Amino acid sequence: MDFAAQLPAYRVRAEQGLDRLVPAATTRPARLHEAMRYALLGGGKRLRPILTLATADLFARAGAPEAQISNFKSEIADALPAAVAIECLHTYSLVHDDLPCMDDDDLRRGRPTTHRQFDEATALLAGDALLTLAFQLVGQHYAATPALCAALTREIADAAGSEKLIGGQMEDLLAEQKADATAADLEFIHLNKTAAMLTVCLVAGGLCGGATPAQLDRLRTAGRHLGLAFQIVDDILDATADTATLGKTAGKDAQAGKTTYVKLHGLETSRQLAREHTDAALAALALLPGDKTFLTALVGSLTGRTS
Amino acid sequence: MDFAAQLPAYRVRAEQGLDRLVPAATTRPARLHEAMRYALLGGGKRLRPILTLATADLFARAGAPEAQISNFKSEIADALPAAVAIECLHTYSLVHDDLPCMDDDDLRRGRPTTHRQFDEATALLAGDALLTLAFQLVGQHYAATPALCAALTREIADAAGSEKLIGGQMEDLLAEQKADATAADLEFIHLNKTAAMLTVCLVAGGLCGGATPAQLDRLRTAGRHLGLAFQIVDDILDATADTATLGKTAGKDAQAGKTTYVKLHGLETSRQLAREHTDAALAALALLPGDKTFLTALVGSLTGRTS
Repeated sequence: MDFAAQLPAYRVRAEQGLDRLVPAATTRPARLHEAMRYALLGGGKRLRPILTLATADLFARAGAPEAQISNFKSEIADALPAAVAIECLHTYSLVHDDLPCMDDDDLRRGRPTTHRQFDEATALLAGDALLTLAFQLVGQHYAATPALCAALTREIADAAGSEKLIGGQMEDLLAEQKADATAADLEFIHLNKTAAMLTVCLVAGGLCGGATPAQLDRLRTAGRHLGLAFQIVDDILDATADTATLGKTAGKDAQAGKTTYVKLHGLETSRQLAREHTDAALAALALLPGDKTFLTALVGSLTGRTS
Repeated sequence: MDFAAQLPAYRVRAEQGLDRLVPAATTRPARLHEAMRYALLGGGKRLRPILTLATADLFARAGAPEAQISNFKSEIADALPAAVAIECLHTYSLVHDDLPCMDDDDLRRGRPTTHRQFDEATALLAGDALLTLAFQLVGQHYAATPALCAALTREIADAAGSEKLIGGQMEDLLAEQKADATAADLEFIHLNKTAAMLTVCLVAGGLCGGATPAQLDRLRTAGRHLGLAFQIVDDILDATADTATLGKTAGKDAQAGKTTYVKLHGLETSRQLAREHTDAALAALALLPGDKTFLTALVGSLTGRTS
């Protein structure tokens, strides 16, 4: 199966998992569960759960030879609940970011944001509930593999915590309030707000597939570079693509006076940086076992949009 | 050591744990960690972590005889990180409840609420970060006891989730908007908003101390009745005590037209219900091993305030 057929197949697995593992809209309190499902099931590329599922499949297909050769003992399990948990976290962060006290956005993926569709209090609680649901899913669905459950809790909570996802969001808010954000500030924001969550997608998939500690380190390296490449490409597209191509308002960053890679380094250097991080991500993936065709194509499709 | 000496000793253990296990205010982003510590370290009775620590001590002191007799194998560990995790969850729920889109409170324990001291966006993120920190603490500090780590994740996430803590909060908001909340509505709110979190304090302590499944069931029964008694007593005090005694504005519930036990059942029946739930909690605790003097006195002090 080639990439163009595999991608929608993975997306269907992710969508089905989301629909099945999130409480029904009729569960009491119905309004809260309706809002959670509205935020979660309204489309989206499902990039994060697809990364988790595809990474787990890498190890399952490879028969995890390294794990068998060494004395390393690992528990393996279906990666779908972990993939859904990470998408719940990603979605909660969007719901809270859209609130009036944050970015105050009315639209998300062409539909009213959760607080516009329901109300602010409901959106706040739905975000809180999606965050908590991530850990309910990990706790419930990996009960039979406690070491895996503990490792997933640790990795996912760390990636979502005050020094990573939320810390990056806070620094992003602070950077908007000052004109002189530095390259170091920008890297802090993107490493934590974007790369940490993409990294934990790969790591969670690796954990579920039975990756060794050395393989998990390679996944961390790949995730870090993928996250930075992904963000630099976003900055380049905002500066160069027209609104129709982008599907959202182009040039928003420059208009808002926002510090971006393009503003700090110029277009040519940004393109060079994006290529370097993409190559580094692919080089780390190449060291892993199994059939890397899909993951390699996925990384290419995410980071190669500027050529 | 008697209750009057033990209570402050437990409180000191809880305070020291909070100070030590929550990231320093200088950790980047400093503003976020300052807000988290401001919300968490500004006083409070520390009821929840004290319940967790005292329950764990019950089993440690008893030498967990039931666990030794049966084939039940359990991992035991220091309950302090779990106690701190639960206090982080309790605090996040207060920070988010105080926000303008929820209760819009300016004061909490005599100090400006977190969003008044900082700003709304910072308070929102600090609440998110405290919620996430609860699971970081469980993931990090119970890594050496993975089955315990997995059980704590499951129990704590479930108690904090959309059908318990957050669900109770949502139903509470909905009940304020309708005049005809029923006794069943009220019980749903208190079972989930109050009792579920008090129950998980006892259960987490029991898990850390090595309680058997049967003992955990007794702790669940005790927590459920303790939570309901606690809430009924709160309603009685709001209707009967004067503002000076209460330390907060008395009669607020009646003024707000809020459905309470006193409004639904009258003062005498409410007192009777509080006594019945207190007795049921104490009866469940009496079936546990170890020296129950402190826990019994604590339950009495929490629920005996109406006599």
